[in-house]
Amino acid sequence: MPENDKQSLSMVTCTAPVNIAVIKYWGKRDEDLILPINSSLSVTLHQDQLKTTTTVACSRNFQQDRIWLNGKGEDISNPRLQSCLQEIRRFSRKRRNTGDSTSDVSGVSHKVHICSVNNFPTAAGLASSASGYAFAIKILFGVENEQLSAVARQGSGSACRSLYGGFVQWKLGEQLDGKDSLAEQVESESYWPELRVLILVVSAEQKSVGSTSGMHTSVETSQLLKYRADVVVPSRMEEMIRVIRERDFPAFGELTMKDSNQFHAICLDTYPPIFYLNNMSHRIISLVHRYNQYYGETRVAYTFDAGPNAVIYTLQDHLPEFVQVVRHFFPLEVSGEEFVKGLPVCSADLSEELKRDINMEPTPKGIRYIISTKAGPGPCVMKDPNHHLLGADGLPKKSVISD
Amino acid sequence: MPENDKQSLSMVTCTAPVNIAVIKYWGKRDEDLILPINSSLSVTLHQDQLKTTTTVACSRNFQQDRIWLNGKGEDISNPRLQSCLQEIRRFSRKRRNTGDSTSDVSGVSHKVHICSVNNFPTAAGLASSASGYAFAIKILFGVENEQLSAVARQGSGSACRSLYGGFVQWKLGEQLDGKDSLAEQVESESYWPELRVLILVVSAEQKSVGSTSGMHTSVETSQLLKYRADVVVPSRMEEMIRVIRERDFPAFGELTMKDSNQFHAICLDTYPPIFYLNNMSHRIISLVHRYNQYYGETRVAYTFDAGPNAVIYTLQDHLPEFVQVVRHFFPLEVSGEEFVKGLPVCSADLSEELKRDINMEPTPKGIRYIISTKAGPGPCVMKDPNHHLLGADGLPKKSVISD
Repeated sequence: MPENDKQSLSMVTCTAPVNIAVIKYWGKRDEDLILPINSSLSVTLHQDQLKTTTTVACSRNFQQDRIWLNGKGEDISNPRLQSCLQEIRRFSRKRRNTGDSTSDVSGVSHKVHICSVNNFPTAAGLASSASGYAFAIKILFGVENEQLSAVARQGSGSACRSLYGGFVQWKLGEQLDGKDSLAEQVESESYWPELRVLILVVSAEQKSVGSTSGMHTSVETSQLLKYRADVVVPSRMEEMIRVIRERDFPAFGELTMKDSNQFHAICLDTYPPIFYLNNMSHRIISLVHRYNQYYGETRVAYTFDAGPNAVIYTLQDHLPEFVQVVRHFFPLEVSGEEFVKGLPVCSADLSEELKRDINMEPTPKGIRYIISTKAGPGPCVMKDPNHHLLGADGLPKKSVISD
Repeated sequence: MPENDKQSLSMVTCTAPVNIAVIKYWGKRDEDLILPINSSLSVTLHQDQLKTTTTVACSRNFQQDRIWLNGKGEDISNPRLQSCLQEIRRFSRKRRNTGDSTSDVSGVSHKVHICSVNNFPTAAGLASSASGYAFAIKILFGVENEQLSAVARQGSGSACRSLYGGFVQWKLGEQLDGKDSLAEQVESESYWPELRVLILVVSAEQKSVGSTSGMHTSVETSQLLKYRADVVVPSRMEEMIRVIRERDFPAFGELTMKDSNQFHAICLDTYPPIFYLNNMSHRIISLVHRYNQYYGETRVAYTFDAGPNAVIYTLQDHLPEFVQVVRHFFPLEVSGEEFVKGLPVCSADLSEELKRDINMEPTPKGIRYIISTKAGPGPCVMKDPNHHLLGADGLPKKSVISD
């Protein structure tokens, strides 16, 4: 174990990114193993803007497994978390039994403390922490890379795609035990440096159906979902990988938008229907299409997950103008507030012709703020013990706790 | 020709109903003949609440074809209208050529004047006039029943279902020329007298994509549409006919909701996506599911066409309570306004438990008003010449004209 062994306390801290799918995961073929009904593909976002920091500690002195998320103690009996822990213990035990001793796995029977914080507000609607646990646990217990996807999946299916940087596919796999249902890097984060990402955080509304129960209901009730998974997605995966390798933005953008729309179509075909897009999402979609229409090419693409916030993909060159378009059509009521967070965006002027052609009524305060980012690397281990979120007593440091 | 022949003026007036599909028509396999990619099924609504009155006149003295809709002169060069007229002339000519003389078809080469008015506001979003033209033209020119669907289809595909009362299917047909793509009555309007219909007219928003261009784009771009048409709808048509014949409301309601949702899912899978449902539609959908959930059975069902207004199907017994539920969750800002138009609805009390279980924030003024109606008969000829909308000069009567 890495350190603190005089107190029989082992501790690892790592950071993990968020990923945004361009070919969506929706539906499990096995709810225990968390195996999907179709392959999916995402872009890992840069941790300078969006990251989860996770410290995992284990000690023979811990009385029970405990977890703190964003400064608040959470119920460890959460089934997701339990199966994540169970999975890791299973792998580690197996390694011990097979006599593999490259890693010290004596901690396996010990209780663990997990502490995880996001550097972005919950309002951004970006789930991610499971990849953080998985990676920290891997380091702590020495799980093999091939087993990492299985551990991360137990936390949240799509989290396995956050185990790598850049462009990552989560392959469907064929085996019943899910051993080949793995995340795999398609291209690294440096492959397409011109690609930029904006998260448009829209004004909060009531919470919709969670993605776990939503996709369960879709599998049970949507007649269109099976066709999507069996017929539509396989060819879209091939096409998506090709257009990423060719850095063909118009094709990448169009396919991204179509797949987002189809995912939300499946949600509507679910019974009872699930709505993640609201009127503001519709307006953003409309704005993107009108903007592209103006230029006669796909310069900007949207994608939406299980919520109303838009994620925009575009190229560096088109970023300043498009951000200005968003500012114009979704003006802040109070000027001077920080509208764009994250990577700086140059200012740009809009032509009267563009504004006229888009021909939409501005919606004041429709968008709360924008997070500006790009593709980034996978999880990282923090070497400096000052970064640990847990103290030597195994409890969250004061700076981590919120009320 | 029926009358006025001393002035060589023939005139017929008839009324035609609106229909609301429970298995939706979306997509044409032939855009000239207006042949659908799937069968559809609708309920014809009662003309006491919703009807279109159409007068068609023809005279050798008319210089050109002319049309007035809801009191305003419209462009006769409208391609829909032109092909409707062309179709009728084609059929009539053919009858003359084959020596059929059961009807006087001498007016066929004459110009026609058409005048049509709805007894319901445009805000209700119910298209219908094409069945009115078709029926009046049939009477005037003596078109065969089998050809009537073809004529009505030229005005608007789904209009052919308004040629009959009660429960009407529009069969897909197999022939290339569309001769077997016909409307057919499944059961008459008296078959299921307990069935009631409410139209919830929601607050107006910007206009969305028209259904003609919308379905064209869906056929061109939605990968899910073909699967719906080929695989999903055929079995749903069989099931829908069966549950109507069995007067099985829970099954009828569930299938109606599922098919409405799937139609809107296809709209979302279209590229660019088409949105007809807005936040208020989502709230109505949510309310219906929560209401049914409370009773543990489907007592109320929604369906939405190419707009945000909901059409509700329910049984007589559940009507008063559900209307009261709508009043409670979508309160009028100014009380005393007429909220329910059409067939009277008894008042009802809501239990606190029901209101609590539905657990939604009321949305003031979310619904403008309700039209209460039921299934009704097909088109009727008006015998009394006082009902003609056109005068002896072939121009709209003063009472018909609006500014």
